[in-house]
Amino acid sequence: MTIKVGIFGSGLVSMHYITGLYRLREGTLKPYGVPFADFKLPYNFTDEEVVTVYDVDEDKVGHELREVIKRNINVDVPIPDSIPQLKIKKGILGGSSAGLDKIFKPIGLDQEIGLEDAIEEITRDLKRSSVDVVLNLISTENVEDVKSVEDLKSRIKEGRLSASQAYAFATYLAAIDSKKPIAFVNFIPSPLANSDVFVELYKEASSVILGDDGATGATPLTADLLEHLKERNRYVRYIVQFNIGGNTDFLALSIPERNLMKEKTKSSIVKDILGYDAPHYIKPTGYIKEIGDRKFVSMDIEWITFNGLIDELIVNMRINDSPALAGLAVDAVRISKALLDKGERGTVYEFNAFFMKNPGPKHMPNISRIRAYYNLLEYLKKREILMN
Amino acid sequence: MTIKVGIFGSGLVSMHYITGLYRLREGTLKPYGVPFADFKLPYNFTDEEVVTVYDVDEDKVGHELREVIKRNINVDVPIPDSIPQLKIKKGILGGSSAGLDKIFKPIGLDQEIGLEDAIEEITRDLKRSSVDVVLNLISTENVEDVKSVEDLKSRIKEGRLSASQAYAFATYLAAIDSKKPIAFVNFIPSPLANSDVFVELYKEASSVILGDDGATGATPLTADLLEHLKERNRYVRYIVQFNIGGNTDFLALSIPERNLMKEKTKSSIVKDILGYDAPHYIKPTGYIKEIGDRKFVSMDIEWITFNGLIDELIVNMRINDSPALAGLAVDAVRISKALLDKGERGTVYEFNAFFMKNPGPKHMPNISRIRAYYNLLEYLKKREILMN
Amino acid sequence: MTIKVGIFGSGLVSMHYITGLYRLREGTLKPYGVPFADFKLPYNFTDEEVVTVYDVDEDKVGHELREVIKRNINVDVPIPDSIPQLKIKKGILGGSSAGLDKIFKPIGLDQEIGLEDAIEEITRDLKRSSVDVVLNLISTENVEDVKSVEDLKSRIKEGRLSASQAYAFATYLAAIDSKKPIAFVNFIPSPLANSDVFVELYKEASSVILGDDGATGATPLTADLLEHLKERNRYVRYIVQFNIGGNTDFLALSIPERNLMKEKTKSSIVKDILGYDAPHYIKPTGYIKEIGDRKFVSMDIEWITFNGLIDELIVNMRINDSPALAGLAVDAVRISKALLDKGERGTVYEFNAFFMKNPGPKHMPNISRIRAYYNLLEYLKKREILMN
Amino acid sequence: MTIKVGIFGSGLVSMHYITGLYRLREGTLKPYGVPFADFKLPYNFTDEEVVTVYDVDEDKVGHELREVIKRNINVDVPIPDSIPQLKIKKGILGGSSAGLDKIFKPIGLDQEIGLEDAIEEITRDLKRSSVDVVLNLISTENVEDVKSVEDLKSRIKEGRLSASQAYAFATYLAAIDSKKPIAFVNFIPSPLANSDVFVELYKEASSVILGDDGATGATPLTADLLEHLKERNRYVRYIVQFNIGGNTDFLALSIPERNLMKEKTKSSIVKDILGYDAPHYIKPTGYIKEIGDRKFVSMDIEWITFNGLIDELIVNMRINDSPALAGLAVDAVRISKALLDKGERGTVYEFNAFFMKNPGPKHMPNISRIRAYYNLLEYLKKREILMN
Ligand SMILES: NC(=O)c1ccc[n+]([C@@H]2O[C@H](COP(=O)([O-])OP(=O)(O)OC[C@H]3O[C@@H](n4cnc5c(N)ncnc54)[C@H](O)[C@@H]3O)[C@@H](O)[C@H]2O)c1
Ligand SMILES: NC(=O)c1ccc[n+]([C@@H]2O[C@H](COP(=O)([O-])OP(=O)(O)OC[C@H]3O[C@@H](n4cnc5c(N)ncnc54)[C@H](O)[C@@H]3O)[C@@H](O)[C@H]2O)c1
Ligand SMILES: NC(=O)c1ccc[n+]([C@@H]2O[C@H](COP(=O)([O-])OP(=O)(O)OC[C@H]3O[C@@H](n4cnc5c(N)ncnc54)[C@H](O)[C@@H]3O)[C@@H](O)[C@H]2O)c1
Ligand SMILES: NC(=O)c1ccc[n+]([C@@H]2O[C@H](COP(=O)([O-])OP(=O)(O)OC[C@H]3O[C@@H](n4cnc5c(N)ncnc54)[C@H](O)[C@@H]3O)[C@@H](O)[C@H]2O)c1
Ligand SMILES: [Mg+2]
Ligand SMILES: [Mg+2]
Ligand SMILES: [Mg+2]
Ligand SMILES: [Mg+2]
Repeated sequence: MTIKVGIFGSGLVSMHYITGLYRLREGTLKPYGVPFADFKLPYNFTDEEVVTVYDVDEDKVGHELREVIKRNINVDVPIPDSIPQLKIKKGILGGSSAGLDKIFKPIGLDQEIGLEDAIEEITRDLKRSSVDVVLNLISTENVEDVKSVEDLKSRIKEGRLSASQAYAFATYLAAIDSKKPIAFVNFIPSPLANSDVFVELYKEASSVILGDDGATGATPLTADLLEHLKERNRYVRYIVQFNIGGNTDFLALSIPERNLMKEKTKSSIVKDILGYDAPHYIKPTGYIKEIGDRKFVSMDIEWITFNGLIDELIVNMRINDSPALAGLAVDAVRISKALLDKGERGTVYEFNAFFMKNPGPKHMPNISRIRAYYNLLEYLKKREILMN
Repeated sequence: MTIKVGIFGSGLVSMHYITGLYRLREGTLKPYGVPFADFKLPYNFTDEEVVTVYDVDEDKVGHELREVIKRNINVDVPIPDSIPQLKIKKGILGGSSAGLDKIFKPIGLDQEIGLEDAIEEITRDLKRSSVDVVLNLISTENVEDVKSVEDLKSRIKEGRLSASQAYAFATYLAAIDSKKPIAFVNFIPSPLANSDVFVELYKEASSVILGDDGATGATPLTADLLEHLKERNRYVRYIVQFNIGGNTDFLALSIPERNLMKEKTKSSIVKDILGYDAPHYIKPTGYIKEIGDRKFVSMDIEWITFNGLIDELIVNMRINDSPALAGLAVDAVRISKALLDKGERGTVYEFNAFFMKNPGPKHMPNISRIRAYYNLLEYLKKREILMN
Repeated sequence: MTIKVGIFGSGLVSMHYITGLYRLREGTLKPYGVPFADFKLPYNFTDEEVVTVYDVDEDKVGHELREVIKRNINVDVPIPDSIPQLKIKKGILGGSSAGLDKIFKPIGLDQEIGLEDAIEEITRDLKRSSVDVVLNLISTENVEDVKSVEDLKSRIKEGRLSASQAYAFATYLAAIDSKKPIAFVNFIPSPLANSDVFVELYKEASSVILGDDGATGATPLTADLLEHLKERNRYVRYIVQFNIGGNTDFLALSIPERNLMKEKTKSSIVKDILGYDAPHYIKPTGYIKEIGDRKFVSMDIEWITFNGLIDELIVNMRINDSPALAGLAVDAVRISKALLDKGERGTVYEFNAFFMKNPGPKHMPNISRIRAYYNLLEYLKKREILMN
Repeated sequence: MTIKVGIFGSGLVSMHYITGLYRLREGTLKPYGVPFADFKLPYNFTDEEVVTVYDVDEDKVGHELREVIKRNINVDVPIPDSIPQLKIKKGILGGSSAGLDKIFKPIGLDQEIGLEDAIEEITRDLKRSSVDVVLNLISTENVEDVKSVEDLKSRIKEGRLSASQAYAFATYLAAIDSKKPIAFVNFIPSPLANSDVFVELYKEASSVILGDDGATGATPLTADLLEHLKERNRYVRYIVQFNIGGNTDFLALSIPERNLMKEKTKSSIVKDILGYDAPHYIKPTGYIKEIGDRKFVSMDIEWITFNGLIDELIVNMRINDSPALAGLAVDAVRISKALLDKGERGTVYEFNAFFMKNPGPKHMPNISRIRAYYNLLEYLKKREILMN
C-alpha cells in the first residue's frame, strides 16, 4: 500500500521532507516533529514514496535530486542513499515569478512552450507517475484568487495564472483524466483551499485540495498563547512578533513584491482567537544569511490582568524553520490519502485548521492550535481514520 | 441571591480579591482576569459578599480590613470605600507555623485555648456568618496528609494538625452542624482535595472541597506550552523555569522549612502532559523585595524537531502574582456555589483541573490548561450551570 | 550664573527635559539618568533655565508650554508649577517637512514670510532671549549636508534648507551679531556637527556645534556589548536589533520619507568597533501606539568563541525612550556652556563621542560608550572643567 | 622560546585549553576567544607546550591524556593528534575533597603517602618538567585562607590544607629550589592571589601568583552592563542572574559543600562598580545534564532613569562555559611568562583585574571589564610587553 507523492518545489522544506522520510524508512531517525507518529492510522510513513519533483531554479532543474539535497542541506543531517534516483523536472513560472530572479536564475516550461501546453505537460507527468498526493512547496508568490472557471481559463490563455494555480489546475486535470482521486496539499500562502473555484473543481474530480500555508513557526504558538490568555479573560494590550531568518524563504520575503501574502495569513489569528483586533505587529522582518534556517523569533505581549494591572510576556525562539513543516508534511501525506480513501471531496476544514495558517474554505476562522488538534482527532475518529 | 464568603488568610491574594470584587460591584473595574466573565452563570460577581476574614499576623489581627488593605496594596489600585467594615479575626496556627516568625509575629487562637477549642470557635463563627464558600489563602505550609479520621482526631488532640487542615475540618463541622452545604476552596498546596479522608468527610457533609493550589503564574503556561509541543511530537530535551519575586509568598518559600510543597505541585505537570519525565528544573528560586508582587519568570526549553535538529524557546515574564489568583477566585466562588446548588459532593475534578495546579482527587493527572478549560465548559453545560 | 536655554521642538524629549529640570531645581527629583550628576562641574543643573521654545505643530504653537506638557506627558510624572510661563513659538518648516502632515498639522513661519525672513526672525528672538545653549529636538528629518556656504545660501533662497540647518544657521547669525558664543547641541540625526561647512561657520562665530543624534536606547548598549566581545576576540557572526515604540518619534520613522537618516547612524557602530562589518539588521522596526514611550527592544547576537563553538546572547529591553535623552540633555547643556567659557570653537569630538550616536566632525569613528566616557572625563579634566 | 605549562585538573577547561592550543599550533583553528590574538607580544601561542597534567579522578589518573580528552569532549571539536603523549598524573586531594565523591571516585597521592610527602613529590615533578607556568583548573573547593606561613605548615602536618593551596605551595618550593621563577595562574575561586601569605611567598621565590577565579560567563558581562548604567547615573533597583548548566562544574556547585566560594566572587562586582549594594540574586542555580557545557544564563535588571521612570533589561545567554576560560588561558600563559621575564614578583593587579573575577591582592576592587582591559593594555605597554 504505497502512497505516491509528487512535489512542486525542491527547496529546504521539500528536501527536509525527502531526507527525513527516507531516514524514517531506513529506521535511522526517530519520528520527532511528526504529530501523529504514535497514533494508528491506515498508512505508515514507510508507505510514502516520492515519485516526481519539480523546480524552476536553473541550478536544480535537470540535476539529480540526491545531489541537490547534499549541496543544500549543510546542517548536521545525514543524507540517506535510499533517496530515489530522480532528476528534478522543469516546472512552470506562470504569472507570479516577479522578483525570483533576485534569488536564482528562474527557468520555466511555459517560457518554452507557453502556459497552456506546460500545464498539459505537467498533467501528463502526474498521470504517468500515478501520484496520490501532491505537495506544493514552491516559493511564496503574490497571487489573486480566480473569480470563476472562465476567469481561470482566460488567465491561462494570457499566461497570467500563478504557478501554484497552474499546478493545482494540472493536478485537477490529471485526476479528471485518470478518474483517480488526488490530494493537493498547498503549504504555501496562495489561496487555493481558500478559493471557491478550486474547491468546486476538486469536488468535481472526486479529489481534495487542502491548505493554505503550513502552520509552523511562531504563529501557531502565538495562537495557543492567545487562547491561553483568552481563557483567562486577560485583555491583550498589544502583540509584537518579529521574525528574522537566513534561508531563501526569508530572502524571498525581503523582496517587496513577494511579501504581501504572508503578512495577511499571520495576522488573522489575533481577531479570530481573541474576538477583538488587539493592536499587533506580526511580520517576517528581515534576512541575514548567517542565521541560516534556524530563524530567530522575538515576541512581546502585554495584557491587563485582574485589578487593572499590567503583565508582560516576552518570547524568544530559535526554530529550525523548514524541518518543522517537513515533519507536518509526513503526516499530511498519509492523512490526506486516507481522506481520499474515505471519499472526502473538495476541502476538509478540520484538517486545514490544524495543519494550515489560513485554513480553507474561505471565511472559516482560525482557531487555536490546541483546539484544532482535538477537533481533528475527533474528526479522524468519526471518519474511522484514527484507530486508537 | 447573595453568596457569603469567608476567607482564611488576608495576604496579597486575599486583599486583591476583596478590592477587585468591590470595584466590580461598584462598576469601576473591567472584569479582566476573571475567566468566565463573559459567560452566563447562575450567579454574578455582584452576588459575592465577604463576611468573615482570618489571619495570624499580629499586625493584621483585630485591625479594620480596609485599613490593612490600604497599608499593604501599594501599587496603583484604588481601594473602594464599599469594602465591608470588618475586623480581621484571629485564626489558628496549628502544627504548620515553623518559620513564619521570620516573616511576621504569628499569634493564634490555639496558643490561647488549644487546637480543639480553637477549631470549635472557628466553626461557631462560620455558622454565625452562614458562609456558603470559604477560600483558603494562608501562607504555604508544610503538611502531611491525614491517614484516617482517627489520625485526624489524634492530631487535633496533639496540636499537630496543620492550619489548613484545621480550617477544612472546622468548615466541615459547620456544614454538618448547620445542615447547610459549604464549599471549601483550597488555593494553597496543602493536600486537601487530594486527601481521601477530607473528600469523604465533605461528601458526608453534602459539601465540596476543591483544590489544591491555585493555577496561576508560569506553571499553567508551561502546561500549555508542553501540550503544544506534545501535539507536534517534539521531544523535549529539558525544561528550566526560574521564578523570583518580592512578595511575602516568595519570602516564605525562601525559608527552607516552607518550600517543599510548592516544588512538588510545580513539577508534576511535565510527566502528566508529555508522557515522559523530561529533565527539568522548575522552582521558585529567590526573593528580592524590590521586585514586589510582579514576579520575574525565566524559562528555557529545548526540543528535538524533525530530522533530529534542536529548537529552543526562551520565555521571560513579568506577572502580577496575586491579582492572577484573585481573578480566578472571583469565578471559583460563584461556580463552587452553583456546584453546591446542583448537589455536587466531595470534590469535582473538572473544576480542579482548570483552577488548580494539583487537581484532586488524589492520583488524578494534570492536563494542559486549554484541555481542562474545554472540559470544564462541557461539564458546566452538562450540569446546566453554564447557560450560553 | 544662569545658563539660558532655547529649544527647537517641544516633543517628548523636550518636555521631559523641561519637566525634569524644574523638578531638579525644586529638589523633588533625584538626578538619576543625568550622567555627571555626582561630579563637580562649573555649573549646576539649577543654573539651567528655559527661555524660548519652538514648534510647528498647530496644536502646540501659541499654546502655554506648561499646558502642552500636561496634555502630552501622561505617564506618572508630576508636572511642576515652576515651569516658566512661556508660549511656544512658531518655528520653521523648511525643506524637510515631507510626511509630517501624517502626524500633525504642520505650520511654519516660512510659509508666511518665506525662509530667509523666517531665519532672521528666529535670529532676532535668540538674541533677544540671549540664549547660551540651544537644543535641537525636532522630529527626524531627511536632509543632505550643504556643500559650501554658497550652497547653503542658495538653498535658503530656494526654500530648500532643512529645518535643522535653518535653525543652526539662525543660531550662528545670532552668535555673530551679538558677539556672544552660543552652543548648538544637535540631538537629531541631521548632519550638523558632521558638516564641515557648519563646523567652520561656528568656528568663525567663536561658538560650538555639537552632535549628531543623541546616544540613547539600544545603540549605545550595543556599542558596549560589541566592545566587550571585541576585547575577547570573539568573532561576531551576526547582530539583530529590533526596536518598536509608540511615541511620535517611532510614528515618524514608520513614514518611509523620514526613516533613512536613522538607519545610517545606527549601523555605523558595528564596523567602527569590531573592525569588520559583521552582518547586521539594526532598525527601528515598527510602531504600536499602545507601547507608548517605553519602547521594546530585542537583540540577538551570535559569536564564535574559543575552539570554534558558537555562543548566543539575546537582549530584551523596555526603555523609556525620551527621558533617556532628556537626562543626557541636562548635562549636555551645562558642559557645552563650560566648553564655550573655556574658548572651544567649532565642534568637540570628545563631547560628541559620548553624547552622540554619530559623533562629529565628519569621518571620526564611533567608539564604545565606555571608552568614550573615560576619554571625556580625561578631556574635561585637562580643560579644567571637571574639578574632582 | 618554549613556555612549559603544567596543569592541575584535567576537566573541561583544561581539555579545551589543550585541544585548542594544539589546533592553533597546527594552524587549523582561528584564535577567536583569545583576547590578545591580534597584538604583538613577546611569545606566540605556538610557544606554549603542555608538559605535565594532574587529576584525582580514578577514571583519568594514569590514562593517556589524548584518550581522556576524546572520551570527554563530545561536542563538535576535532581532537588533534599533536596533543603530547602524556599520562595524567595522580594529584593531591588535601583537605578540600568533601563532596567530590558524589561526582567521581577521588584518589590522591596524599592518601598513600601523606600530604607532606605528596607536596614534595609534586615539587620534584615540576622541577623535572621545568615548568614556566602552572594553571590551576581543579574543581571548585571550599577553602579558608592561611593566616601565616606557620599556619600553612601546621595545616600541612594535619592534612588540612586545600588542594589548591598544596599545589601553590609545591610550585613555590619548585621555584625556590630550582631558582627559576614560575607563574602560578589560579583560575578557580580559592583565595591565592587574594592571600597575603601566598603573595609574600611568591615574592620570595621571584615568582608570581595570579588570580583568583577566571573571569568568564555572565559575571564579566554583568560588570560591563553595570558600568554602562553607572556612567549614565541610572539607579539600579535590583539585579537577578540565574545560571544553569550541565557540566561537572555545575554539578559540583549543586553540592552544598562546594558552592559557597562561587557566590562570593560573583556578587562582589555589584558594590565595587555601582558604589552601592543594589539588591541582587546572582547565583549558579541548578544542574541539568542535558544542558551540557553550553550553560543557560538569564538576567533581569531594573533601574530608575530620568524623571523617576523605570527601565528594564533582560538578558538571556547560551554560553560555552569551558572554552571561554580556555581561550583566556592561552593568553594568560604567554603574558604571565612575559611578566616573569620582566621581573614581576608577587601578584599583578592589572593582570588579575582583567582575567579574574576576584582580582588579587586582597581588598583590591573589581572594576568593569572594559576599564580593566584598557588598564591592562596600558600596563603591558609601560612594561614593554605589548609591542604595538
Ligand atoms: N516552516 C516553513 O518553512 C514554512 C511554513 C509555512 C509555509 N512555508 C512555505 O513553504 C514554501 C517552501 O519553503 P522553503 O523554506 O522550502 O523555501 P525555499 O525557498 O527553500 O524553496 C522554494 C523552492 O521552490 C522553488 N520554486 C520557486 N518557484 C517555483 C515554481 N514556480 N515551480 C517550482 N518550483 C519553484 C525554488 O526554486 C525553491 O527551490 C514557501 O512558500 C514557504 O512560504 C514554509
Ligand atoms: N498567584 C498566587 O499568588 C498564588 C498561586 C497559587 C497559590 N498561591 C497560594 O496562595 C496563598 C496566599 O498567597 P499570598 O500571595 O496572598 O501570600 P501572602 O503571604 O501575601 O498571604 C498569606 C497570608 O496568610 C496569613 N496566614 C499565614 N498563616 C495563617 C494561618 N494559619 N491562618 C490564617 N492566616 C494565615 C499571613 O499572615 C498572610 O497574611 C499562598 O499559600 C500561596 O502559595 C498563590
Ligand atoms: N531617546 C530619544 O528619544 C532620542 C534619541 C536620539 C535622538 N532623538 C531625536 O530627538 C528628536 C526628538 O525626539 P522626540 O521623542 O521628542 O520626538 P517627538 O516626535 O515627540 O517630538 C518632536 C517635536 O518636534 C516638533 N517639530 C517637528 N518639526 C519641527 C520643526 N521644523 N521645528 C520645530 N519643531 C518641530 C514636533 O512637532 C514635535 O513636537 C527626534 O528627532 C529623535 O530622532 C531622540
Ligand atoms: N568558564 C569556566 O568554565 C570557569 C570560569 C571560572 C572558573 N572556573 C573554574 O575552573 C575550574 C575547572 O572548571 P571545569 O569546567 O574544567 O571543571 P571540571 O569539573 O570539568 O574539571 C575539574 C577537574 O579537576 C579535577 N580535580 C578535582 N579535584 C582535584 C584535585 N584536588 N587535584 C587535581 N585535579 C582535581 C576533577 O577530577 C576534574 O577533572 C573550576 O574550579 C571552575 O570553578 C571555570
Ligand atoms: Mg521555510
Ligand atoms: Mg502570591
Ligand atoms: Mg524619542
Ligand atoms: Mg566550567
